[in-house]
Amino acid sequence: MITSISQSPLFPIANPKSIAFFGASNNFLAMGSSILSSIISDGFEGTIYPVHPREKTVLNLTAYADVKEIPKVADMAFIVLPTKIVAQALKACGEKGIRHAVIVSAGFNEVGGDGVERQKELQKIADEYNIRFTGPNCIGVVNSHVKLNATFLPSEGKQGFIGMASQSGSFITQMFSYLDNRFGQGFSTGFSLGNEANIDMVDCIEYLGACPNTKVIALYIESIRQGQKFIKIARKVSKNKPIVAFYAGGSETGKRACLSHTGSLAGPDRLYDGVFRQSGIVRARSIEELFDFCHAFGSSPRPKGNKLIIQTHSGGPGAAAADACERTNLELPMLSSETLEKLAPFIPHTGSVNNPVDLTYTKNPLDFFHDIPKVLLEEKGADGMLIYFLATAGMVHQALSAMGASQENIGTQIKDIVELQCKSIASLMETYGKPIIGFSFLTRDNPFVAGLQDKGVPVLPSPERAARAFSAMVEYMRLRDKIIQQED
Amino acid sequence: MITSISQSPLFPIANPKSIAFFGASNNFLAMGSSILSSIISDGFEGTIYPVHPREKTVLNLTAYADVKEIPKVADMAFIVLPTKIVAQALKACGEKGIRHAVIVSAGFNEVGGDGVERQKELQKIADEYNIRFTGPNCIGVVNSHVKLNATFLPSEGKQGFIGMASQSGSFITQMFSYLDNRFGQGFSTGFSLGNEANIDMVDCIEYLGACPNTKVIALYIESIRQGQKFIKIARKVSKNKPIVAFYAGGSETGKRACLSHTGSLAGPDRLYDGVFRQSGIVRARSIEELFDFCHAFGSSPRPKGNKLIIQTHSGGPGAAAADACERTNLELPMLSSETLEKLAPFIPHTGSVNNPVDLTYTKNPLDFFHDIPKVLLEEKGADGMLIYFLATAGMVHQALSAMGASQENIGTQIKDIVELQCKSIASLMETYGKPIIGFSFLTRDNPFVAGLQDKGVPVLPSPERAARAFSAMVEYMRLRDKIIQQED
Repeated sequence: MITSISQSPLFPIANPKSIAFFGASNNFLAMGSSILSSIISDGFEGTIYPVHPREKTVLNLTAYADVKEIPKVADMAFIVLPTKIVAQALKACGEKGIRHAVIVSAGFNEVGGDGVERQKELQKIADEYNIRFTGPNCIGVVNSHVKLNATFLPSEGKQGFIGMASQSGSFITQMFSYLDNRFGQGFSTGFSLGNEANIDMVDCIEYLGACPNTKVIALYIESIRQGQKFIKIARKVSKNKPIVAFYAGGSETGKRACLSHTGSLAGPDRLYDGVFRQSGIVRARSIEELFDFCHAFGSSPRPKGNKLIIQTHSGGPGAAAADACERTNLELPMLSSETLEKLAPFIPHTGSVNNPVDLTYTKNPLDFFHDIPKVLLEEKGADGMLIYFLATAGMVHQALSAMGASQENIGTQIKDIVELQCKSIASLMETYGKPIIGFSFLTRDNPFVAGLQDKGVPVLPSPERAARAFSAMVEYMRLRDKIIQQED
Repeated sequence: MITSISQSPLFPIANPKSIAFFGASNNFLAMGSSILSSIISDGFEGTIYPVHPREKTVLNLTAYADVKEIPKVADMAFIVLPTKIVAQALKACGEKGIRHAVIVSAGFNEVGGDGVERQKELQKIADEYNIRFTGPNCIGVVNSHVKLNATFLPSEGKQGFIGMASQSGSFITQMFSYLDNRFGQGFSTGFSLGNEANIDMVDCIEYLGACPNTKVIALYIESIRQGQKFIKIARKVSKNKPIVAFYAGGSETGKRACLSHTGSLAGPDRLYDGVFRQSGIVRARSIEELFDFCHAFGSSPRPKGNKLIIQTHSGGPGAAAADACERTNLELPMLSSETLEKLAPFIPHTGSVNNPVDLTYTKNPLDFFHDIPKVLLEEKGADGMLIYFLATAGMVHQALSAMGASQENIGTQIKDIVELQCKSIASLMETYGKPIIGFSFLTRDNPFVAGLQDKGVPVLPSPERAARAFSAMVEYMRLRDKIIQQED
């Protein structure tokens, strides 16, 4: 086990000071050119040496006809060449002394036939020259904390706490705007693995486990190649940092799709369930769940148990959340007499304190963001909360407007109210060390949703998803405790 | 069974020409004032008569101290008064000759004790004067096609094809922006039912079944009060129009929450499964699913069977979709040799035709929107498609920009490309009469997603949700066929 990311073969790949780039040209439609464009436009601060047989400059950078001619030994080579010339480029890198590479080019194991031989050749060259590489058939690498986006889609440079290792490049690149739109998040570091001819998923877990910017690890898995090694390393990492995995190969149809995609042979669902359990990994049942869980894990403290209180001002979302809680093995305890007494002044006669605590119409809206959740977090019989946020800035606007505030003042006042209320929830979570997961049918266009998430309070888009995320945290704590016990 | 909405007691409630409004004042923070504000600001074209004991005008409308003084008999009364004076207001309406009402006020059956008596009193008055009413403890009514939004949240007037009957008002009001943000949709008509002291869920299903603007019916259910009547009417309606239901009372915890919310006694999950099946109703397992299914049902033709083809240019989303299909009882047939032959010119050597059909990198992007799906829709062994849309306008922008187009031209060109491609998919769906469900991790901020949805192609936010929606359509056809067979 590594103790620092600098010990990982992935370190120069995720933190290069210089890159030898094969396969970019001044034809902007080529994949290689797209990737080099992203690297430049997302603000990479190191040196890039494009290698091109004919062009003198590529995207305004001085180009080299041969890697030998580059004045320095680059930290890594980035290869997006036609399949047939990948091996010779890798060999040239080896001769130059380059020891790390990302091979984006496809046409290897995943296509079968000759491709299998071609992949073996890459492995042979790498062994000969001590090269460690990701791919082939991968999409690249991102590290938002050093402004490296070596993929074909612009990332908008959003930093974040989710470290991802993916057997599909799509779940790196195509999640940039997903994570930003839903959670205001980006990846801390993201690795696209492709065919894993050299560096594999386990290396990534080790790296991300040691990465100081990564609070939670997300895995997209089509197949685990080295089961025992995977379990051994994941167990160690998951003791300190949660790992969430989505596995796509569990069904027969999924298995066939994975075989076509990365040439990997997936195994039955139950086998993977066992591997994940032993590894302390929480399994997500969809891509949405994978990132929902990461959002919750990275934002909130962990629950000590499975008992929670639902706070709502709308009966329906409260009932749907309650129903979802039971279906995900969570319990809604009745409130203690002490809590009921403290709560009484805040509850109108139309409300309910049966957990869900349903306030219907609150007289003082700030109660909802401070005094009431404070009382509920003090309840000794509960380990955390779900809170429904109706949170329409429109209603606040209407109310202020009706009270005669000027349009100009309204803008500032709404901002102040949102700031105050979001901060209040965030600080309560910190003070009491219990998780709060919010849910709302609104999106980050709404200032409350964005405000809460940006202050570190997870907000998910439905009661069911909030309940499942809470349940995932409970499950993680259970798996982790078991691993710790087994080691004692 | 009614054959026209005008025969329904809900007709004057959803299509009033005049409203006697109780409980609005010039205090803008009161619930009644909020609702009246929404009615006015959303553009209601009928006449409103506010009733207020002291104010001469309410929100700039002439107010009446007593309903007796109103010069006409309003089509319906809208009542948002304090609990204790609701009964006397309803009686006054009866004496005036008003025969329809919406009672928003709470404090009846749902609070137990005296509330039960108070609700009985309302029923007695209604019987005496032949009044039909929704509520009490409801949130109002919306009919986007006559610009009526009698709820406390502004709707932005979005029209749509989803007819909703809900035992929680939240799932009307709080879904306005949800449906708009996700699908560019609104409700055709939405009824909040509250305690169902008089008009109930079955009346709503009958109305929505006959409503020409409603293509699909959404139900939020905490409890069905009259099982036999419900099944009888729902069976008749679902033969012609799909009904999707979310039931929140299935777990013990959900049941308790429903009891607090609307005073209704929920039943076990399995009982409701049976009721839904007999009724031809597709059950959704979450609020998100409820509206996902409605989006798909309202947009696309129905599949003749459970076999489908997945088209993608990204392996991961394809594999996740394939896995989700098997888990939702869908089949991915292998393509016929005829189809393979027609497909060959479009597939690069890195691609796969194993279903998912994975194009990886398409040379001519328009192939993805026309020639390829055309070939796949012609496949006799398949009943429909899922298509993954990476669809980043950013990439199109980058490519056009690189080819030297001016910024001004780029805007127009992107608009034209999006228009052309979205129209192509929509017209293929129509020509072949097979459903296409798109999925994308992008939102309606992306012009492709909005363009497809606005042209009638459903696009859902993940592979799993797209698969479940397709499966819901297959299930609906199965239930419907069974009902038709049983009647023969």
